[in-house]
Amino acid sequence: MAAVSESPVFRATTTAPVNIAVIKYWGKRDATLNLPTNSSLSVTLSQRSLRTLTTASCSATYPAADELTLNGKPQEIQSSKRTLACIASLRAHRKDLEDADSSLPRLSSFPLRIVSENNFPTAAGLASSAAGFAALVRAVADLYKLPHSPKELSRIARQGSGSACRSLMGGYVAWRAGELEDGSDSLAEEVAPQAHWPEMRALILVVSAEKKDIPSTTGMQTTVATSELFATRANAVVPARMTAIETAIQNRDFPAFAEITMRDSNGFHATCLDSWPPIFYMNDVSRAAVRLVHDINNIVGRTVCAYTFDAGPNAVIYYLEKDSDIVAGTFKSILGTSLEGWSGPFYDAVKDVTSGVPLDQVDSRAVDVLKTGLSRVILTGVGEGPISVEDHLIGEKGEILSTL
Amino acid sequence: MAAVSESPVFRATTTAPVNIAVIKYWGKRDATLNLPTNSSLSVTLSQRSLRTLTTASCSATYPAADELTLNGKPQEIQSSKRTLACIASLRAHRKDLEDADSSLPRLSSFPLRIVSENNFPTAAGLASSAAGFAALVRAVADLYKLPHSPKELSRIARQGSGSACRSLMGGYVAWRAGELEDGSDSLAEEVAPQAHWPEMRALILVVSAEKKDIPSTTGMQTTVATSELFATRANAVVPARMTAIETAIQNRDFPAFAEITMRDSNGFHATCLDSWPPIFYMNDVSRAAVRLVHDINNIVGRTVCAYTFDAGPNAVIYYLEKDSDIVAGTFKSILGTSLEGWSGPFYDAVKDVTSGVPLDQVDSRAVDVLKTGLSRVILTGVGEGPISVEDHLIGEKGEILSTL
Repeated sequence: MAAVSESPVFRATTTAPVNIAVIKYWGKRDATLNLPTNSSLSVTLSQRSLRTLTTASCSATYPAADELTLNGKPQEIQSSKRTLACIASLRAHRKDLEDADSSLPRLSSFPLRIVSENNFPTAAGLASSAAGFAALVRAVADLYKLPHSPKELSRIARQGSGSACRSLMGGYVAWRAGELEDGSDSLAEEVAPQAHWPEMRALILVVSAEKKDIPSTTGMQTTVATSELFATRANAVVPARMTAIETAIQNRDFPAFAEITMRDSNGFHATCLDSWPPIFYMNDVSRAAVRLVHDINNIVGRTVCAYTFDAGPNAVIYYLEKDSDIVAGTFKSILGTSLEGWSGPFYDAVKDVTSGVPLDQVDSRAVDVLKTGLSRVILTGVGEGPISVEDHLIGEKGEILSTL
Repeated sequence: MAAVSESPVFRATTTAPVNIAVIKYWGKRDATLNLPTNSSLSVTLSQRSLRTLTTASCSATYPAADELTLNGKPQEIQSSKRTLACIASLRAHRKDLEDADSSLPRLSSFPLRIVSENNFPTAAGLASSAAGFAALVRAVADLYKLPHSPKELSRIARQGSGSACRSLMGGYVAWRAGELEDGSDSLAEEVAPQAHWPEMRALILVVSAEKKDIPSTTGMQTTVATSELFATRANAVVPARMTAIETAIQNRDFPAFAEITMRDSNGFHATCLDSWPPIFYMNDVSRAAVRLVHDINNIVGRTVCAYTFDAGPNAVIYYLEKDSDIVAGTFKSILGTSLEGWSGPFYDAVKDVTSGVPLDQVDSRAVDVLKTGLSRVILTGVGEGPISVEDHLIGEKGEILSTL
């Protein structure tokens, strides 16, 4: 420390969360800028369960080309236009600072070395790109000591992966579609912080590996170009749902939140099915989860749980902490604790629960399909936005460390 | 014959076909009159494969209450408003004839005895109500010697079961939604006779028994009331498709016919999924059939087959006779001839075919799912409308006969 190198390595490390949309992003009005056809809204999930950890560093001593290592594997950064776009924006902002204040080190001229690791398996089928790009943008912004707010940074992260913009904040996050051609008004903003409604829980049912039919970027382009029902969704249905679910969140009205969530998931998958050729992400296991959620709500006589499905068969079941015994308890009693994932920081509420609703009152076919169709569960809940940490993945001399 | 009874038994017998829609009927604007929210179009299937056989009889010697026997089981006719509505209309038309010509026997005052039998198992999951009501209406109309055209009779059959109106004609049949409140302009009409495009074939993949989630009448009411995408389908999408598919039929343009058929099936199921609660009729076996049809068309490099799904998981695959080897041959090579249904009057074209497209080029998961998910196939093709026959199910003295 006393003998600081003439060419020190500058570092910043952050974690970033996964988010799961309740109003779905599906369709781009501009593919290069990642501008969506409609606004969307998500719940940020706790980084105690799922997180990306990213260290950004730069140094005059590094080789000239920027470097990126993901989960231990060096990436061809030059072939990722999206990564390049994010880095270029961040570097330009740094350069503006340096130009305005000549006392600042010229970090914008140094090569970058970025190392990123997820604590969840890619095979889990969770969209890791949102957490990944949010962490990359937050880490480089911290490295560059940019004064930008999360909302401002969301404009940059959006260019990496649309839904990444929503992972820059915690709690309940809206991505406003915006109207401007340059996308400058297409930003994420916090609708309510995690502390406003901290009781939200999520049980992720990871469906046994099945090849994904079609990547989401290709899928959404197909839907926009071919579904004759899509324009109605984007222009009429979603705007009304955005207003309604923001009200439900403000009022902590779970039944309203749940119904809108489920209907929007169904409507999104309906436009996929209406695409040409048709796109199917849900399978019989997904349908069984849908059935069970409706059965649980019907048996209890109030809405205690809600499903939502992204571009894949995995179900995310939202419920409130107080209904853990009914909701998580039912799934636990069906799936058994030999299935991986009944553990972790959110397990306490369901640890001693052995049953939920009476299983003889739910659809027996759905129970059978679920029993054999899942590879693991993930128990989690609403969480915070990115967090600065000191667990650097790059050492003081620029060497790559790893937690893998 | 010389000694005719003073109270003879009057009889008429007809067969009626099943029809499978390519533009789907889904949604009623009037539930009592069975008035649809949109027009629809179907292919009448050959009665050499599937048919309902119905004898209508009446006699002054019969007990006072009308009687109906379906597949050997006496029905509670008074509890079937739809059956009563059809009979009342037909009787009123007969009475008009009798009032205008006093020489006619007063059949309208005699009790009816109707016996009806399907030659296909109810378990096959085929909508038997269309053929059933078409046969009932045609048989009673013949018994009453009504001068009404099939188009005029379709108004009556529609009140029994909406899609029944399309089974009163052969070939390619449109059901015009109509606009009048009394339903008098909601009628079926032949778009093209069977002879215009007789090469159309249909391979029905009967999916292994699975409980039907929701009856179609309930399902369509739910969709109309809750799907936010449904109005777009009914008001904008279907009218354009009706025009386009009628043109395709006139031009015998199979690729156009096929694409419209597949897209309309997908769009219909999309509005089911968009309903609240959501309605799923297609399952993983259905999805596998969809996948295989797309794979076959892609491999061949032209559109040789099309799928369509009604309110259940069974696939109906349309193709032209000349492509039997490619289409039916592919399914035959996957399913094997130990599966029931590779037989009957349409089997000749595929009898000696052992392979279609190379199976190593199609989705292997879809092949696996299909292999284990079907209970039988039915090979058939476009056919004629109802046919008057002498195979009476009621004897000369009114006794019930049976072919069961």
